[in-house]
Amino acid sequence: MRAAVLRDGHMVYRDDVPEPVPKAGQVLVAIRACGICGSDLHFADHGADVLSLTDRLGAGAFTGMDVDLSRDVFMGHEFSAEVLEAGPDTECAAPGTPVTSLPVLLSRTGVEPIVYSNSTMGGYAERMLLSAPLLLPIPNGLDLKHAALTEPMAVGLHAVNKSNIAPRETALVLGCGPIGIAIIAFLRARGVERIVASDFSPKRRELATMMGAHETLDAAQGSPFDTVKPTVVFEAIGVPGIIDDVLLRARPGSRLVVAGVCMEPDTFHPFFAIAKEISLQFCVAYSPEEFAESLRALAEGEIDVSPLITAEVSLDGVGAAFDDLADPERHCKILVTP
Amino acid sequence: MRAAVLRDGHMVYRDDVPEPVPKAGQVLVAIRACGICGSDLHFADHGADVLSLTDRLGAGAFTGMDVDLSRDVFMGHEFSAEVLEAGPDTECAAPGTPVTSLPVLLSRTGVEPIVYSNSTMGGYAERMLLSAPLLLPIPNGLDLKHAALTEPMAVGLHAVNKSNIAPRETALVLGCGPIGIAIIAFLRARGVERIVASDFSPKRRELATMMGAHETLDAAQGSPFDTVKPTVVFEAIGVPGIIDDVLLRARPGSRLVVAGVCMEPDTFHPFFAIAKEISLQFCVAYSPEEFAESLRALAEGEIDVSPLITAEVSLDGVGAAFDDLADPERHCKILVTP
Repeated sequence: MRAAVLRDGHMVYRDDVPEPVPKAGQVLVAIRACGICGSDLHFADHGADVLSLTDRLGAGAFTGMDVDLSRDVFMGHEFSAEVLEAGPDTECAAPGTPVTSLPVLLSRTGVEPIVYSNSTMGGYAERMLLSAPLLLPIPNGLDLKHAALTEPMAVGLHAVNKSNIAPRETALVLGCGPIGIAIIAFLRARGVERIVASDFSPKRRELATMMGAHETLDAAQGSPFDTVKPTVVFEAIGVPGIIDDVLLRARPGSRLVVAGVCMEPDTFHPFFAIAKEISLQFCVAYSPEEFAESLRALAEGEIDVSPLITAEVSLDGVGAAFDDLADPERHCKILVTP
Repeated sequence: MRAAVLRDGHMVYRDDVPEPVPKAGQVLVAIRACGICGSDLHFADHGADVLSLTDRLGAGAFTGMDVDLSRDVFMGHEFSAEVLEAGPDTECAAPGTPVTSLPVLLSRTGVEPIVYSNSTMGGYAERMLLSAPLLLPIPNGLDLKHAALTEPMAVGLHAVNKSNIAPRETALVLGCGPIGIAIIAFLRARGVERIVASDFSPKRRELATMMGAHETLDAAQGSPFDTVKPTVVFEAIGVPGIIDDVLLRARPGSRLVVAGVCMEPDTFHPFFAIAKEISLQFCVAYSPEEFAESLRALAEGEIDVSPLITAEVSLDGVGAAFDDLADPERHCKILVTP
């Protein structure tokens, strides 16, 4: 079977990956589209750091991450697919049914995240295994390329839910990559009346406007806080220094939702946060309900994700796509279509 | 008039401070007791740093802090007093009425915090001015020495309110100085069923038990997180490194309420907080309602603060008291009784 795998920090095309075989409770699916996530780019560059930080958090809380970087690693967790065949004694939708799923594989030995693994196939492949109880049929004839964005959009929905934002509040979204855009789209869907987005890239600001931002600011022209006084700030950049800058500039009582994933140590002034009684809610992922809600919002046309998809590549183009994603002027989301 | 003032980093006794004269809306009071706050100790040692950090936050949000450290500074914001005389055209309680107040002085030119000032007298003096609209009579014959703790206890109440803790949740309080103790007392008053407190000092752990902790842990014997899995953590230490340690060890979904005032830059791993979706609520001070509620809880005997008071000094003993407070085995709260 064909797949793109992480080897020595680069995505490598292989045509000799063993065919996955569904066990009881599992379903073999044919992948139709898989989005390339920023966390995959980061893992390719800094996999050892990610694993070591995850280890520090304790194996108890975060299982399934014992990855050997000297062996090929399977990735790809933003996928849509079609059912091929159920495992033994397993009921699931008929072959040909379009589906997506939480990126988690259930087996008799436990729960494995479909994120980085030496053994469990991810979405950068022709076929993969999913868990029958977690399959979500893709309704309304939603384009399977759009359905592949259910996962990153759910991350944005989750951040919006965690913010408890009310429609009359002003939201500032820092960073208009895929997660910032997902946040903007769900803020708009929620009826938030003033959504301001900031980014250095003109293309990304344009995309932010298209996806629901009422105003956009060029981060090169000064701090967005010079222009807007938000009550809720969404940090979707994930580099050191951003949090301290928000604490310094935000107004008293602000809520900061941290959706950007900064993997490095960061320095901040607790005093800034204390003096202003700022709250920080750190976010990752989503609940199963939010994942399903994200799919519903896409399928019912409440959110049109097509502007996010800036390119499609086949499995032998994944390596080049990883490089291309470094340029925010060219790309937002690249889909791998096996 | 006699007072203790901050001069060149030390508390100095003076008997030649000009008598304050109440203007319209103000009331001259005789101070009966004033607690020494950790923030005063910190300001004595690091006043320039405090002022520079406060400046960075912007004069707009935080007025009344333009203090000249080359001149004498008046401090003392945890006070009880008796009314002496109202200013012109000012109605207030009769002379002799025992009162306390939010540490804020209203005047025709604005609002000045009674915290650090070259001109507005604080509680380390014989007499000071308070604001007639803010005077709270001390009810139920509450000992004025206890009433002086209304303010630091309100800080604890505020942190508890900000935590939204439910009775069945487990609370861990890191640090059993006055603010940690105030948090413990209000957690207990709120009916929280498992309150665990951690400190290096046996005396402080004893005090924590007396004030409501169900269990105490010696911080020298290992991380409290080895013993307890709290859902809400109160950080009442305020030194760099504590926040990162909590993020590393706390369980997923924890809420961290930061009540300790760390004035230095601090380093943490956003990834720890992200992976566990931890929320951080930074706290300072209290609302007027919380201040009044703190006084009520003391006056109605719901919280007995007498164990906190470990010494009393007169105005000429303030300098030595500042030094003595460095030793947690000897002191919790020292009252200045002019």
